[in-house]
Amino acid sequence: MRTAGIIGAGQLGRMLALAAKPLDVECIFLDPAPNPPAVGTGRVLTQDFNSEDALSVLAGCDVVTFEFENVPVSGLEALSRKVPVYPPLRALELTQDRLSEKKLFASLDIPVPAWHEVSSERDLATAIEVLGLPLVLKTRRFGYDGKGQFLIRRRQDASLAWSEARGKALIAEQWIDFDREVSVIGVRSREGGIAHYPMTENVHRNGILQTSRAPAEGEEIARPALDYLDRLLAHLDYVGVLALELFVTGKRVLANEYAPRVHNSGHWTIEGARTSQFENHLRAILGLPLGGTEALGHAGMINLIGVLPDQPQLLEAEGFHMHDYHKAPRPGRKLGHLTVVAPDAAIRDDKLSKGLRLLDIS
Amino acid sequence: MRTAGIIGAGQLGRMLALAAKPLDVECIFLDPAPNPPAVGTGRVLTQDFNSEDALSVLAGCDVVTFEFENVPVSGLEALSRKVPVYPPLRALELTQDRLSEKKLFASLDIPVPAWHEVSSERDLATAIEVLGLPLVLKTRRFGYDGKGQFLIRRRQDASLAWSEARGKALIAEQWIDFDREVSVIGVRSREGGIAHYPMTENVHRNGILQTSRAPAEGEEIARPALDYLDRLLAHLDYVGVLALELFVTGKRVLANEYAPRVHNSGHWTIEGARTSQFENHLRAILGLPLGGTEALGHAGMINLIGVLPDQPQLLEAEGFHMHDYHKAPRPGRKLGHLTVVAPDAAIRDDKLSKGLRLLDIS
Repeated sequence: MRTAGIIGAGQLGRMLALAAKPLDVECIFLDPAPNPPAVGTGRVLTQDFNSEDALSVLAGCDVVTFEFENVPVSGLEALSRKVPVYPPLRALELTQDRLSEKKLFASLDIPVPAWHEVSSERDLATAIEVLGLPLVLKTRRFGYDGKGQFLIRRRQDASLAWSEARGKALIAEQWIDFDREVSVIGVRSREGGIAHYPMTENVHRNGILQTSRAPAEGEEIARPALDYLDRLLAHLDYVGVLALELFVTGKRVLANEYAPRVHNSGHWTIEGARTSQFENHLRAILGLPLGGTEALGHAGMINLIGVLPDQPQLLEAEGFHMHDYHKAPRPGRKLGHLTVVAPDAAIRDDKLSKGLRLLDIS
Repeated sequence: MRTAGIIGAGQLGRMLALAAKPLDVECIFLDPAPNPPAVGTGRVLTQDFNSEDALSVLAGCDVVTFEFENVPVSGLEALSRKVPVYPPLRALELTQDRLSEKKLFASLDIPVPAWHEVSSERDLATAIEVLGLPLVLKTRRFGYDGKGQFLIRRRQDASLAWSEARGKALIAEQWIDFDREVSVIGVRSREGGIAHYPMTENVHRNGILQTSRAPAEGEEIARPALDYLDRLLAHLDYVGVLALELFVTGKRVLANEYAPRVHNSGHWTIEGARTSQFENHLRAILGLPLGGTEALGHAGMINLIGVLPDQPQLLEAEGFHMHDYHKAPRPGRKLGHLTVVAPDAAIRDDKLSKGLRLLDIS
């Protein structure tokens, strides 16, 4: 038996641990939250992310990874001198600050929406001049699921956004009236081998992922998207799963952000791909050969947000697979997801629509 | 969260528990063995199967099932007055004695190899006259993986077999020089809905399952086999997964035995079917709608018996999925299994052959 230490014990950790068991790998989690989703799938250390006691337990693991990005890199750096930590911490550090992430994209010639650093109200005014309206003012750090974002549609919205956001490091981004949102997920082994999952199309609602569909249509979109993904993986000397989110407008493909971890838009891979993103992340960080990433059909995923409907109802008729994260309901909280895999995209979309109606999500 | 009590905590229990988590179902196991495979996937009560303390814990579960057949029915009967126990105990009781199993098959007009009850050495002599040679002398109870079976090829082998087996209730069975061994696995819901997995072809070695392939060829074999399966499921008012093993000689299909539980010959369903036998067993006993049982390709399964080869080697190149049961190596012990799913049977067979060569199993 080998052990993998995991920073964070949310649903991503839970699903990693379930993929780990058949490989005879036990996960040990570090998360300060009481009763997190990974409880019952491995040992959970309920301590702060910088707890020396907890980090010394993780130092005894065969490998350490993270399923949560807002974790201090400094503590992990000390840990990485005692045990292999994957993905590389530089990939984590660069994405913790939207400014450094944008600069990384620029250095790799990956197109992004126009942006402007904002340190003062005057910078914000300049951003409005340069980028035009609408624009999105974002905190550079600790944003997720749309949190820390302010949409500025009219000039007079600027001072309200500023007063709410001030005191934080900020960045203004050109508002992209995108046609589609897609993501590409890749995995890179310790030896540098890369495998891609088919591109996924995503629909967000109130800043939170609502549905994913894969494989997404559009070879002319997938080609550059996968190329950008490869540049990131190679440049970062990456090990593990990485997700890159992109906006599509016409034939333009613009990178939005990347996540150095397994990703919500890859949950469909559990039933819908030869090897799930969770198993492949583990295979990569443990130095095992990567598993096949081909799709097994046309997959659709629905996030269950805020409330969890009746289980028998959800599993009825439409062939959905249920993934309950064992979380207390709370508005805006991801409590689980459903996946369906169909022989073609039309049947998949029909099932997804029925599922959304059943869930009363229009 | 719901709880499922499971009698036995072997690899079948382990795989049930892993399928249970996404349904937010926690498994509680009862098994007297120290450190069984299910450790780490749910609470394990390390007590005898008739321990009153343990049974009272299981009585607090939402449902109780078993993954092991050689368990006293009496203790479970008392339990079934406090909590639903599925599959029905009659299905367990009837298969615990090969004689009652044969009589059940006969009552349902399911053909079996000729047999003769053996209570004395004289009965054995009669059996040899009636059934001819070779024949197989089997203990009526507590046999598994070929244990408790004596092949009598020549008349003079009889007294040796008798001296080894005497004192146990016995049955003699006609030796079937079969062309193929197949199994059919079905699941029946609480409401009586039935779903079948495609027929599986199995190869045993030293009485232990070595490889399975599914879907198995032969519509003219599958039709009667699935018909016999349906008769069993309906007659027993069955709830859960049931596996029926059969011999094929020419176009004759003869029932060998059934197992009132998830079955080794259905392990391929984890990667190879829409819904695994483990999830469907849980769905059935919990009163949830059954999931699809269609194959996702052509699956092959190899049992890892006695020794566990190097993990990276196993996962290399051929697209195998690994299932390590976390058991100490011991000759003849099932330590794990490998599954591969391919787009057609020829590719599947090629991958299986390579896998067997890699494992040094000729």
